[in-house]
Amino acid sequence: MLKILEFLRFLEKNLKEGKMAVYVVGHKSPDTDTICAAIAYAEFKKKRGVDAVPARLGDLNSETEFVLKKFGLPVPELMTDATGKKLIIVDHSETTQAPENLDKAEILEIIDHHKIGDITTPNPIFFLSMPVGCTCTVIKILYDYFGIEIPKEIAGVMLSAILSDTVMFKSVTTTDEDKKRAKELAEIAGIDNIEAYAMEMFKAKSDIAGKTPRDLIFRDFKDYVMSGKKVGVGQIEIVDLSLLEDIKDAIYEEMQNVKAEGRHSVFLMLTDIMKEATELLVVTDEPSVVEKAFGVPLKEKSVWLEKVMSRKKQVVPPLEKAFAEV
Amino acid sequence: MLKILEFLRFLEKNLKEGKMAVYVVGHKSPDTDTICAAIAYAEFKKKRGVDAVPARLGDLNSETEFVLKKFGLPVPELMTDATGKKLIIVDHSETTQAPENLDKAEILEIIDHHKIGDITTPNPIFFLSMPVGCTCTVIKILYDYFGIEIPKEIAGVMLSAILSDTVMFKSVTTTDEDKKRAKELAEIAGIDNIEAYAMEMFKAKSDIAGKTPRDLIFRDFKDYVMSGKKVGVGQIEIVDLSLLEDIKDAIYEEMQNVKAEGRHSVFLMLTDIMKEATELLVVTDEPSVVEKAFGVPLKEKSVWLEKVMSRKKQVVPPLEKAFAEV
Repeated sequence: MLKILEFLRFLEKNLKEGKMAVYVVGHKSPDTDTICAAIAYAEFKKKRGVDAVPARLGDLNSETEFVLKKFGLPVPELMTDATGKKLIIVDHSETTQAPENLDKAEILEIIDHHKIGDITTPNPIFFLSMPVGCTCTVIKILYDYFGIEIPKEIAGVMLSAILSDTVMFKSVTTTDEDKKRAKELAEIAGIDNIEAYAMEMFKAKSDIAGKTPRDLIFRDFKDYVMSGKKVGVGQIEIVDLSLLEDIKDAIYEEMQNVKAEGRHSVFLMLTDIMKEATELLVVTDEPSVVEKAFGVPLKEKSVWLEKVMSRKKQVVPPLEKAFAEV
Repeated sequence: MLKILEFLRFLEKNLKEGKMAVYVVGHKSPDTDTICAAIAYAEFKKKRGVDAVPARLGDLNSETEFVLKKFGLPVPELMTDATGKKLIIVDHSETTQAPENLDKAEILEIIDHHKIGDITTPNPIFFLSMPVGCTCTVIKILYDYFGIEIPKEIAGVMLSAILSDTVMFKSVTTTDEDKKRAKELAEIAGIDNIEAYAMEMFKAKSDIAGKTPRDLIFRDFKDYVMSGKKVGVGQIEIVDLSLLEDIKDAIYEEMQNVKAEGRHSVFLMLTDIMKEATELLVVTDEPSVVEKAFGVPLKEKSVWLEKVMSRKKQVVPPLEKAFAEV
């Protein structure tokens, strides 16, 4: 009976829409770039005649909530399962970060700016990944290439994504493309003072009031497979690390539980946006990987990494190399 | 002693060049697109200030030989091992089709038009794959995007690649982009009659004089992993299948040896360019995949597939689906 009802709802939805929608979706533990890229690329595809809908794989963080409110855009719908869906993947190309049952979905496109992951397809598709600081920079390049006008609120969330992913152009991942396209987006969005807006956003990001240690660990958390081992790497970006002082021990304790859920190691980057450095909390059976990866031995629970702000460029690649060596 | 000599040669080469070259390389069993894409993209990178060199993973087929002679371009150097090299991969993204020891090379870019394969990278790179008929169409789009002039002979080999991969725009893989960019390339190359030139090329491709059955099987042969099984799919394109009549039995016999070299199945497409159809020779332990994939039961050694000319779009995807079901 339930199945028939589900089918009728499915039919109604498709009759209403005339055809099956394409879901544009980013990675698990969504951050501002993944959510804003889904919104901006769905808009781009709509302008190109595709019935595209942005989706998300989890709860928004406080920064992303602030950004959507600021520009008056609705929260994308939650997608719990990819079965039978048509998908455009943004902001990653890893099966571990993608929706469940990805193998039962049809992947139409991939737009990204990370390392090339393990997602494969049975057919040729459009796959564009560029070594820039943010997926929304790639999407801006596509808007420009096709000469499509960007609505003011969409430009606002794209700018926010670039400022978030590049930590206001301070991260080593920042390229000239990011700066150029962000400036153009700020003009469209009517943001005169980019730095002042970025600080507003980072304060929203740093809001830890009412959050549990688990909330904070999974605020921006990604699983990788490194030399056959499941390794989780999370990141909390905050304007001042001292804000975390009271809760740090509880976070470390919870990381042990996160590790016990089938992971070989769990790393958590506590990134101080103003100091431009990261305290890396580590729970692992193989402490030697830390010195192999970063040249600093793990003594207590963490190591201090000067000038390290990018998981993608400064933490994941050395860890992958270190895991390959142990 | 040999090692020291090798090292000195390596040093001399690098001193002369000032830095380490980037090799642009396509897939094993090179066809016209893979060779011409390597040449055209190496030229593109050189114009963008990168010391790029085209390379190949095997002998040229008779069509590609004809094309390079026609436009007066040298045969790219043979690469036997990727160890320690900087690579740009063109025309595929599959480890089985890539040079040996790919994991010991640094992949800088991937430019392709096939299904997304299993190559991954430790760092973000430029990866552009488009669902068009030919890698050289993607490369033409990049030349145009960056406003880089294409030399006459480079335009000639790029045009040849598009005509070869799309079988003169007859293959189902052909898109409007392929036709548009090919026309522009023909103008630059000074080819007035595209059809007459394509027929000249196909006659060169159909030249089987002096070739052994093994030569013909491996003329354009790719290995895939389908549901954990190694499956080889080759293709011989010929203006008239009757030209193969005398040698077909010997080819079939040799396919059994090719299968015995560690493959679960070997498929060989004998594609009649003028009839726009394919006779698919099959050696497999699982004959049921043929009917599952193409709706025609395997009776003797082969099945006849009307309107099938594209391995990438019409043979590999249904085979992958069929292997997933058995």
